[in-house]
Amino acid sequence: MTDSNIILKCYSPNGVIMPGRKISSIRCMDDSEKLHSEKLRLESLYSRRSKGLHASEIRELLKLTQQPDIISFAGGLPNPATFPYDEVKEITSEVVDHHGKFAMQYGTTEGLVALRLQIAEWMNKKYNTDLDETNILIISGSQQGLMIAGYVFINSNDTVIVSDPTYLGGIGAFNAFRANMETVPLDNDGMCIDTLEETLIRLDRNKIRAKFIYLIPTFQNPTGVTLSEKRRKRVIDLASAYDTMILSDNPYSELRYKGKAHSPLISMDHENRVMYLGTFSKILAPGFRIAWMVGSSELMKKCIISKQSIDLCTNPFNQYIIAEFMKRGLLDPHIEKICKIYKEKMKIMLSAMDEFFPQEVEWTRPEGGLFSWATCPEHVNTRELFESAIIQRVAYVTGSAFFSNGGGENTMRLNFSHPSNEMIPEGIKRLSKVLKSAITKPRSEEVITGV
Amino acid sequence: MTDSNIILKCYSPNGVIMPGRKISSIRCMDDSEKLHSEKLRLESLYSRRSKGLHASEIRELLKLTQQPDIISFAGGLPNPATFPYDEVKEITSEVVDHHGKFAMQYGTTEGLVALRLQIAEWMNKKYNTDLDETNILIISGSQQGLMIAGYVFINSNDTVIVSDPTYLGGIGAFNAFRANMETVPLDNDGMCIDTLEETLIRLDRNKIRAKFIYLIPTFQNPTGVTLSEKRRKRVIDLASAYDTMILSDNPYSELRYKGKAHSPLISMDHENRVMYLGTFSKILAPGFRIAWMVGSSELMKKCIISKQSIDLCTNPFNQYIIAEFMKRGLLDPHIEKICKIYKEKMKIMLSAMDEFFPQEVEWTRPEGGLFSWATCPEHVNTRELFESAIIQRVAYVTGSAFFSNGGGENTMRLNFSHPSNEMIPEGIKRLSKVLKSAITKPRSEEVITGV
Repeated sequence: MTDSNIILKCYSPNGVIMPGRKISSIRCMDDSEKLHSEKLRLESLYSRRSKGLHASEIRELLKLTQQPDIISFAGGLPNPATFPYDEVKEITSEVVDHHGKFAMQYGTTEGLVALRLQIAEWMNKKYNTDLDETNILIISGSQQGLMIAGYVFINSNDTVIVSDPTYLGGIGAFNAFRANMETVPLDNDGMCIDTLEETLIRLDRNKIRAKFIYLIPTFQNPTGVTLSEKRRKRVIDLASAYDTMILSDNPYSELRYKGKAHSPLISMDHENRVMYLGTFSKILAPGFRIAWMVGSSELMKKCIISKQSIDLCTNPFNQYIIAEFMKRGLLDPHIEKICKIYKEKMKIMLSAMDEFFPQEVEWTRPEGGLFSWATCPEHVNTRELFESAIIQRVAYVTGSAFFSNGGGENTMRLNFSHPSNEMIPEGIKRLSKVLKSAITKPRSEEVITGV
Repeated sequence: MTDSNIILKCYSPNGVIMPGRKISSIRCMDDSEKLHSEKLRLESLYSRRSKGLHASEIRELLKLTQQPDIISFAGGLPNPATFPYDEVKEITSEVVDHHGKFAMQYGTTEGLVALRLQIAEWMNKKYNTDLDETNILIISGSQQGLMIAGYVFINSNDTVIVSDPTYLGGIGAFNAFRANMETVPLDNDGMCIDTLEETLIRLDRNKIRAKFIYLIPTFQNPTGVTLSEKRRKRVIDLASAYDTMILSDNPYSELRYKGKAHSPLISMDHENRVMYLGTFSKILAPGFRIAWMVGSSELMKKCIISKQSIDLCTNPFNQYIIAEFMKRGLLDPHIEKICKIYKEKMKIMLSAMDEFFPQEVEWTRPEGGLFSWATCPEHVNTRELFESAIIQRVAYVTGSAFFSNGGGENTMRLNFSHPSNEMIPEGIKRLSKVLKSAITKPRSEEVITGV
């Protein structure tokens, strides 16, 4: 029992110091004493996890892309033309009238029952799952789901398996818990499944059990590629064989503009190994910050307790708005509307790339989502190229940001959902000019050799 | 460089395996092989931080208090009668019309500039600070601020100093980072400042530098007590002398119903040692989940990068609503309205306690906030008493929940903001009956002796 505990027992609500309360002789502070530190030593107070954090280069680059005459393929923003303004206005008014007392109050950590029930029903219908509200936790955006997964599973130096490249926010969330990230490459069929197996074998040989495999199975961010049906089956089998979890991050699967939908990992899982993240950000609007996490009710209980420390509850006001939006049957027609708009944009971008991009560049041809991913010849560094692109008034995201252990310097992510249909071909033209000049420019080594 | 890194370099967007891609002989999966684990060993995958997490007793108790005929002094809920329904309805409609494109889109991590500027101006006027928008980070409720402070400062086994008792959510957030919590008792003038100094001296002697001192200086949760002016000066001096930070959590100071406001710690700090948390939950409505963190712009930069991994950004939709609410000058009149309502409630509760509570019980007499705190004779265990209270259809929060290292079994927190004016005296009467019976009941030891 510490000194302060002893004193605690003597705490009296009247502020009277009760018997036994003994103040030992202590240093007396007054202005004449020079007790003040010269200066706050802030850096030395930071945690190890935060010492390594510096403003991301991406973030700084993105700022440059916000100038009005720049055609930006950077960011991953939905197009505001898809937002349901009138419906939200009407629904909000109704929410305040009929549910204001609850919508403006604290909510439960697990989220609004009405919303969780509707999500469960919607997923059961679409994905052939068998979920109820105890499998659904409402979260403040998918990013919070990544954080919760890290919180619940990762100790410092624990291993998680991620694709290379993978979503930036996944890297950030797992780094926050100081995870060791094992990377598995992607090809056009998603995560290279044989390499995943090799990785699991190697880890197992070293007595390391991965905490989970992090995947964006459909229209992956940043590449736009989709995990094939065959590989989906194998991922499930591998997770089972090596007794690990799968974190399936699925913001994009509803945004399919061609081809046939694949089986969702969550419907193939019979051992409760899949934690699933869904979000309204891409199928309704990101500004509400409403997403959801799915898993066994046992796991969800753990996640709920974690979320209590993280933000108590997701904002009820917007949960009520979305619950009413779903209740009115507006979600599916709205997704159809979004798909129609983005399908056109994707087509325009891929055609423009076909027409203008130099033949040395390769790019993915997604069937949905928000992104294509371009790979330049190895000597091209897209970070170095960025300045020339900005001079040409066009922007992208440098691909290296999506590699958790380095690499990808010759790659870039291109978003097609946000720019206007008219600007896409113009932007691709500008970018082609930049790429051509970089590809034909003699490599720096050759220049030196030539000197 | 790991195996997977080598393969990464060979990644081709066409899915073609490029030269150098070598798949070593690997295990072949088919249904006949019994590779599947018998069962998911979930418990053994959990992180250490989450293994210790179990549904809080408080949470389970609070569920009991939601039955309609129970008069609940539990919870810490604002009264929905104070929510500005009409204003929110009108403002939301305007926000959708004029800012919908941005309000429904992703926002910046630091939050809406217009809102940050208004908060800075509001605080400068009220608290005599000198803040601009670079000192303000919009967060998803104060709880997220506690999490960010933990994220940025706490390594496993680092020391933070908290009062005993303190806010439950603070304990949760710091426990998440596996902090060692040094506790300092409270009296009617807030944290016992001499014990704080003794604690700092003892830590210093053991070469331990506390990461921060966590305080709710005004109308503390759970006790309702306020740190005296003299102690405020000393806390600032002590933080400077021992080169540590202060985390000043201030949800209640605007809810003052009598007496004179004390100097805010943040206006007394000239060394950027104070991280401040403010929130709209108690002065507007909790359902929006909008709060703010204040600190030096250097520290805020670090917090912003942390928040990117935590939830990308706080929901812009509600930020726009609150920014417009403030812009219209509605906040201060609204706070006045709330204070008028709660002042009456506090008066009613304290009078009822004076009238009905047994003389053996002591309680705090706050000048504002949401809570009073009652201390029973030592042999009374408020957890054991809870069942009798529920039978009498009255509820409170057991005090022991607010002690991070145990203790406080004879205490309880009583909320006066949520129950109706009519129900408060009736609830206190019921509770008095329960307390009297517990106090006069012979102690269990005496019963045994008597046998």
